[in-house]
Amino acid sequence: MSFNSFGHLFRVTTWGESHGPALGATVDGCPPGIALSAGDIQPWLDRRKPGQNRFTTQRREADEVEILSGVYEGKTTGTPIQLMIRNTDQRSKDYSEISKTFRPGHADITYHQKYGIRDPRGGGRSSARETAARVAAGGIARRVLAQLMPGLRVTGYMVQMGPRLIDRSRFEWDSIDDNPFWSPDAETAGLWADDLDALRKTGNSVGAVIEVTARGVPAGIGAPVYAKLDSELAAAMMTINAVKGVEIGAGFGAAALTGVENADEISMGEDGQVYGSNHAGGVLGGISSGQDVVVRFAVKPTSSILTPRGSVTVDGENTEVVTKGRHDPCVGIRAVPVGEAMMVCVLLDQLLLHRAQMGDTVRGHIG
Amino acid sequence: MSFNSFGHLFRVTTWGESHGPALGATVDGCPPGIALSAGDIQPWLDRRKPGQNRFTTQRREADEVEILSGVYEGKTTGTPIQLMIRNTDQRSKDYSEISKTFRPGHADITYHQKYGIRDPRGGGRSSARETAARVAAGGIARRVLAQLMPGLRVTGYMVQMGPRLIDRSRFEWDSIDDNPFWSPDAETAGLWADDLDALRKTGNSVGAVIEVTARGVPAGIGAPVYAKLDSELAAAMMTINAVKGVEIGAGFGAAALTGVENADEISMGEDGQVYGSNHAGGVLGGISSGQDVVVRFAVKPTSSILTPRGSVTVDGENTEVVTKGRHDPCVGIRAVPVGEAMMVCVLLDQLLLHRAQMGDTVRGHIG
Amino acid sequence: MSFNSFGHLFRVTTWGESHGPALGATVDGCPPGIALSAGDIQPWLDRRKPGQNRFTTQRREADEVEILSGVYEGKTTGTPIQLMIRNTDQRSKDYSEISKTFRPGHADITYHQKYGIRDPRGGGRSSARETAARVAAGGIARRVLAQLMPGLRVTGYMVQMGPRLIDRSRFEWDSIDDNPFWSPDAETAGLWADDLDALRKTGNSVGAVIEVTARGVPAGIGAPVYAKLDSELAAAMMTINAVKGVEIGAGFGAAALTGVENADEISMGEDGQVYGSNHAGGVLGGISSGQDVVVRFAVKPTSSILTPRGSVTVDGENTEVVTKGRHDPCVGIRAVPVGEAMMVCVLLDQLLLHRAQMGDTVRGHIG
Amino acid sequence: MSFNSFGHLFRVTTWGESHGPALGATVDGCPPGIALSAGDIQPWLDRRKPGQNRFTTQRREADEVEILSGVYEGKTTGTPIQLMIRNTDQRSKDYSEISKTFRPGHADITYHQKYGIRDPRGGGRSSARETAARVAAGGIARRVLAQLMPGLRVTGYMVQMGPRLIDRSRFEWDSIDDNPFWSPDAETAGLWADDLDALRKTGNSVGAVIEVTARGVPAGIGAPVYAKLDSELAAAMMTINAVKGVEIGAGFGAAALTGVENADEISMGEDGQVYGSNHAGGVLGGISSGQDVVVRFAVKPTSSILTPRGSVTVDGENTEVVTKGRHDPCVGIRAVPVGEAMMVCVLLDQLLLHRAQMGDTVRGHIG
Repeated sequence: MSFNSFGHLFRVTTWGESHGPALGATVDGCPPGIALSAGDIQPWLDRRKPGQNRFTTQRREADEVEILSGVYEGKTTGTPIQLMIRNTDQRSKDYSEISKTFRPGHADITYHQKYGIRDPRGGGRSSARETAARVAAGGIARRVLAQLMPGLRVTGYMVQMGPRLIDRSRFEWDSIDDNPFWSPDAETAGLWADDLDALRKTGNSVGAVIEVTARGVPAGIGAPVYAKLDSELAAAMMTINAVKGVEIGAGFGAAALTGVENADEISMGEDGQVYGSNHAGGVLGGISSGQDVVVRFAVKPTSSILTPRGSVTVDGENTEVVTKGRHDPCVGIRAVPVGEAMMVCVLLDQLLLHRAQMGDTVRGHIG
Repeated sequence: MSFNSFGHLFRVTTWGESHGPALGATVDGCPPGIALSAGDIQPWLDRRKPGQNRFTTQRREADEVEILSGVYEGKTTGTPIQLMIRNTDQRSKDYSEISKTFRPGHADITYHQKYGIRDPRGGGRSSARETAARVAAGGIARRVLAQLMPGLRVTGYMVQMGPRLIDRSRFEWDSIDDNPFWSPDAETAGLWADDLDALRKTGNSVGAVIEVTARGVPAGIGAPVYAKLDSELAAAMMTINAVKGVEIGAGFGAAALTGVENADEISMGEDGQVYGSNHAGGVLGGISSGQDVVVRFAVKPTSSILTPRGSVTVDGENTEVVTKGRHDPCVGIRAVPVGEAMMVCVLLDQLLLHRAQMGDTVRGHIG
Repeated sequence: MSFNSFGHLFRVTTWGESHGPALGATVDGCPPGIALSAGDIQPWLDRRKPGQNRFTTQRREADEVEILSGVYEGKTTGTPIQLMIRNTDQRSKDYSEISKTFRPGHADITYHQKYGIRDPRGGGRSSARETAARVAAGGIARRVLAQLMPGLRVTGYMVQMGPRLIDRSRFEWDSIDDNPFWSPDAETAGLWADDLDALRKTGNSVGAVIEVTARGVPAGIGAPVYAKLDSELAAAMMTINAVKGVEIGAGFGAAALTGVENADEISMGEDGQVYGSNHAGGVLGGISSGQDVVVRFAVKPTSSILTPRGSVTVDGENTEVVTKGRHDPCVGIRAVPVGEAMMVCVLLDQLLLHRAQMGDTVRGHIG
Repeated sequence: MSFNSFGHLFRVTTWGESHGPALGATVDGCPPGIALSAGDIQPWLDRRKPGQNRFTTQRREADEVEILSGVYEGKTTGTPIQLMIRNTDQRSKDYSEISKTFRPGHADITYHQKYGIRDPRGGGRSSARETAARVAAGGIARRVLAQLMPGLRVTGYMVQMGPRLIDRSRFEWDSIDDNPFWSPDAETAGLWADDLDALRKTGNSVGAVIEVTARGVPAGIGAPVYAKLDSELAAAMMTINAVKGVEIGAGFGAAALTGVENADEISMGEDGQVYGSNHAGGVLGGISSGQDVVVRFAVKPTSSILTPRGSVTVDGENTEVVTKGRHDPCVGIRAVPVGEAMMVCVLLDQLLLHRAQMGDTVRGHIG
């Protein structure tokens, strides 16, 4: 048990607060002999970095990662890798006001209730800034998976912002990197831009749904009953700030289907079995089937908004809270690389667990 | 790491196959001095038992639980409690046919791909029969929580079957136990009965959505960042057979809301802070707020249906699969007591974790 | 965290009390496809069984193991294996007297202090009877290791009883099974028999030192820093009832050596590197070197003796305690197969951990 | 599972190599509201620091600890505490020679065999420098225990160096801090000084035995069966570099005793039960009894010596190894504060586990 760790064998422990001197991740259990430098990790951090465009917070953080241990002459040694990111843009300001009220819908009040103390500077430990450490750890996982799961491609993208969904008939993998919303549907991305501009002007925010697809996952990853791949993914995604729901494959939509509709029929193709559909999202009985692993998660609108909302003070007085400062109007945008990072960390961890029990054996082809 | 355990301190390890001699749960970490007998656990098992009405499988299992250890003179001793349920209705039959094909949408194929071996008798370890062990463990958790979280009431119910949802304006807590669907809306329960009768006649099955509400959870339970209460609940619910999605509070609906709409405003009431709404589902930043904890999960339609679906054999030949036998047309119905069991186990486990770090301190009232 | 489990990936959870209906072990993480029947496990239980000769307790337990799950058609399936041993020789007697006093040197008093309740029947959970479950689990580990570590031979034996040590110049592997003390020195075994007969007549008991040697462990098993092979072995042996010390290789003797004496010099032999000595006991920096892994543990004399010793009652009155009944005069004898079981379980668990991080790679030969 | 973590609830993960930029510890699970600054931790690091006198290595490390997270306005917040110690005395030198041979008795060869790669600079991760991180973490544990276990006093001291033991009749707690060997027997300390001067001149090293006593541990800490307090302590001490044996109370000496001799008789004193002796070392059945908890561990002589020893190269050639540089002639001396740190970390972790299961209940007084 560790409150701030995830993964069983590829084990990541994150630490640090939004406005402390630094934050980071201790990554234990990494296989040795993997070529790794800060330069391999930095590009993933840059994708998540604030201030990239007008739709994300204007906080300016370099988010430069340093490797403090676990690498010798450019290769991992099998010992723990310490990743550190210094916080550089901590505006000195007076937190006395903030520390006395609770933003509605924010962790302010529950931290206070649990611990009797909280770090109010930028949200402290509850800030989404913590996710930088995950993305850095994900950068390591990607390096390892490049060797151990060579055909793997993990891609996150936004499929809904507010009430507006993408049109799946316009889905283009290549569009994802070409717009500030990681949208696979360029046309919807344009509409979202208008939506978000309007929201920002009114001091409001909005929710989103992110989908992460892993292509090239071999069959057999995951395990019954409480180490199911989908359970691990659900836990992982639900730890991301502001996430309120997770689904696999058809997800909540499966509730409305019949068994005849939902069955992913199987037949023999040229290179082994093929499936007629993927309602399962690539996971059957907690174990990967070889189909694409498809996970979606819902991100609520940030509670840090300019519109006043009713709240209470630590002393039990009614008040109104307005959150000034540099906040993301749609935190879902920057959650995309975080969701990808969680996916790669879970896949690597589950692959190591699989190797433990099964050795290097991989069975995929039926017959 | 353990593939078949859940919980950190109130730790449940289940074992057993659908058609083996017995199945059960090893429950470790239970506080001592709690009055406990098989009779305290049996009523919860009876709620989940098959063959209760025409809408569930006609398999006849007594599901009688025996306590083999951890209790002395009617009280828990703090040592592990072994719960055993003998399988009595294992019809002897020829499994050679079943063992050679894979039901589309079922774990048959992935167990085969992972392990190269599977127990085909009634689905072996992948059978929902495993959930009997969870419900038994949940019976113990309820006894402990009756002492440690005295005001707690955990209630599961169905809110959607197929495309048909309950009407929340007709929600009655008292209706839930009065119909075979655990529906809080008696009128919808009647429509579901018609829906399901029609589906069964055509050899089909259907999905569902279950909601579990925990009333009376004190503030402060759960922990950032990777031990979030909602992450633990998501993992727990996602381990239940056929579950494809989990959400907390407004869940996926939160994606369509603005920050202004989603904020649960707070004000001071007579007995401390009160909330104007509960979009958060009782969890903020991974920690309970004192509001009702509300979790929903989607259950897919069972893949064991009488309608033929295309599949392949272990030898790589195309075939069609028809699953005869006694199967639930809507496995969501019997998932209701299972969801409740997972909720109580998670709440107790998190309460013990909270006690470890904080002692018996509980802070709820602001001001 | 689990109070009653050991192992990380080959994970054993034991349950049951001395005089309850049954005891056993839940074994999770076992690789699939391993041929296994109760008959494979029973011989190891028979070695530990009470009443084998006049030097062990005369309690008569069949110690017959049943496999309740995890095996299909004679092979492990990768799902949890439940092992159950029924308690058959539970003499009905009045425990009211025993439950009111504390045997000096026994867990009676600390269980009472911790839990406020204890099962006094035969020592309840604190009885060495729990070790039957470990030996059964060890039987499974041996089956797996026969495939994954083919040259492995694990042998336990007694090297000291009371103040009398074996003479290492008379060490014969073949003698170990030929005397009731598992002594590799037949002559000393004869002297121990006389020693023990004398002790029993005076209602006394005696301590012992057990050595367990694992031959054929490949290099590379174990890991720095807190998963060191020797740390795992120390923890495992120290969990055996009555054990008060554990050492590896030269152990406490190394404290008296100089660095020049203690260095195990290395040179190239015909089949790779060879060592001039084995003060390290086969473990360097927490990782196996390919030399024999040698562990010793000290077992204290049982506190259940016929000679009256001063104690107190639960009500805080001074009293004298005499423990009647069927007790081992030297519990160290029956600890030998238990020590072997712990060794094989640790080695398998560590091998699985090694495979997770390193795959099937094994490097042993230098150069 | 984590290779580089210890503790279940007070969980310490150490990271860093001897000659990398920094090393440290991530401390998770610390209770909130504890006053803590770097100044509270530094004194414990200073006790372990090299170069304090002529009997320890002359490497000059400031060992200044920085707190990077988990503390706000001088108090712990319940979130992870990151401790960082920069390495300042990394003499640049040519490691190409060192990286090609293996010191006999050192982890060089097993790291190579396991990982196929090792950091040869100052021993990399296998260096005893890692223990600085433990001592820092222990400093935090002491602050917490000052509140949660107020009467606790944990003291480590050397009881044997080479073949020379202290004379227990001259044991003085107050002497321990007055000599460079942490000896409770001032006279023996003087003899050790002569012994060690002689050894150093001949380019040799020597082993030692350290004892750590915890006074003021309440009854009831620890748990059966695999979470025994003595098992946890054995594991913890055995993870310290160069440790080859651990014992509790009478330890290996108990093997030579009879049950009559070994029984620690109990009687009622003025303030509850008192014990006539403490062969048990304060632990019965894995649970603390309220007596002093007494642990001893054996430290082997360092393998880094100036006397040439036979070895092999990575290419499989015979060679001789002489280890130049700044090494401790008796690493046991600096292991004293490390043993203390492990004791306090284990005690706090076990106390938190106790609170989880039992709440704030502490029972000590019988009757």
